Amino acid sequence: MDNRPIGLFDSGVGGLTVVKQVMKVLPNEDTIYFGDTARVPYGSKTRETVTKFSAQIIRFLMTKNVKAIIIACNTASSNSYDDLVRIFPDIPIFEVITAGVESCIEATKNRRVGIIGTQATVRSAAYERGIKQRMPDIRIYSQACPLFVNLAEEGWTDNDVTRMTAEIYLKEMLDGGVDTIVLGCTHYPLLKHCISRVVGEKVTLVDPAKATAMKMKKFLESRDMLKEGEGAERRFYVSDHTQSFDILCERLLKQHYTAEITDIEKY
Amino acid sequence: MDNRPIGLFDSGVGGLTVVKQVMKVLPNEDTIYFGDTARVPYGSKTRETVTKFSAQIIRFLMTKNVKAIIIACNTASSNSYDDLVRIFPDIPIFEVITAGVESCIEATKNRRVGIIGTQATVRSAAYERGIKQRMPDIRIYSQACPLFVNLAEEGWTDNDVTRMTAEIYLKEMLDGGVDTIVLGCTHYPLLKHCISRVVGEKVTLVDPAKATAMKMKKFLESRDMLKEGEGAERRFYVSDHTQSFDILCERLLKQHYTAEITDIEKY
Repeated sequence: MDNRPIGLFDSGVGGLTVVKQVMKVLPNEDTIYFGDTARVPYGSKTRETVTKFSAQIIRFLMTKNVKAIIIACNTASSNSYDDLVRIFPDIPIFEVITAGVESCIEATKNRRVGIIGTQATVRSAAYERGIKQRMPDIRIYSQACPLFVNLAEEGWTDNDVTRMTAEIYLKEMLDGGVDTIVLGCTHYPLLKHCISRVVGEKVTLVDPAKATAMKMKKFLESRDMLKEGEGAERRFYVSDHTQSFDILCERLLKQHYTAEITDIEKY
Repeated sequence: MDNRPIGLFDSGVGGLTVVKQVMKVLPNEDTIYFGDTARVPYGSKTRETVTKFSAQIIRFLMTKNVKAIIIACNTASSNSYDDLVRIFPDIPIFEVITAGVESCIEATKNRRVGIIGTQATVRSAAYERGIKQRMPDIRIYSQACPLFVNLAEEGWTDNDVTRMTAEIYLKEMLDGGVDTIVLGCTHYPLLKHCISRVVGEKVTLVDPAKATAMKMKKFLESRDMLKEGEGAERRFYVSDHTQSFDILCERLLKQHYTAEITDIEKY
């Protein structure tokens, strides 16, 4: 048994979609979330900067005595995971790409899939590499959709602007006949309804968050690291106050939480 | 005479629209620009965070021996100018709001004006206060247009998505009959053509950048601080490499410049 909390972090508040899945799959585990709202977004930034910011956050989470960490951010997962594992060899670190890759391969029938994410995630080609390794004869369409993050943050989750933006971004992969699209950014599940209407019911939308939470569960079980007893404590930290944290908490976690402000540049 | 450079900074690359005006109005002056591309945007962040980031940048610019500073960012100008002047009493600091206020008052005939900017700029009410002080009987419509920054950064300066977004954001002030709109964010001049088409030819769009550069010119003249001799050196620094810097340099300044990467958190 290991009663220490699980740490999760994201560039901003999008990672709360991963917190939600961890709460479902591991309801008794304590969690500590950090959202880097002072420096959001990461998706338009370089690998070096994303790695530096992520390392500061992991150092912060380690001061909170976490037993394992989930990088609940596709940009940091795809750009910085290898470096972070090297910098922090003593803490188990999980990313969201592998689970997304596996869910995508399970879902596709025609072997034509789409990957959507930030510029940095698409540039890293992490999803492509993971998918091609497991299924070499697959056709992959990748598309950076940077505005999806901003539309989600603006609360325009299902209006005409978002629909038209989705039509522009997704045209090429839909013309290519994909039957599966990976939502390769934690913000995108917030636009799922709108994206669904644009791509049609026959296209499966894969959200890596649930499979990532399942991976964490298996890991904790196999190492006998699950928490003893019931009832979980949830703590939230951000680098800057933002209304979107409050709004998303209510919407996703159906509860009000107060996030503590942390000066992350110190770490 | 004072041959030291003028320092300018912005949350990202939008401030290059101000550099362009300074180059026109003060062609012989050396300039040093800092764009905080690692932490862009500022417009969704709190006053405390914007002030902290701005102070780090001013400390950096002061190591470059600048003779005066232009805050080429409406969010930092409207939220942090008073604090920054207090923190740095020994360097002349200019902001973009005052020039925007004055240009707006000169332009309006029907005394109905619109202010558009980031969430933080609109929340600060700096434009409203400045305008009401000089012209109390004016009707002001303020609207945060956060997606305009993202659309400009995405290069969607004049497509259907941007037009429709402008129609949504500007509807209320257009219904209110404004004859003048202040582009209260350095990114917005990049969308000027599209915004123009939405608001119609009878509405004047005010860009504070030119009037700000004129203010700097008058200041340097009055203090006998203009540079001696011809030919100007232009230096550019950013906190993270980004393609949008290269693209905007070519587009606005009609020249390729290389920006040096700086670790701004050290300052």
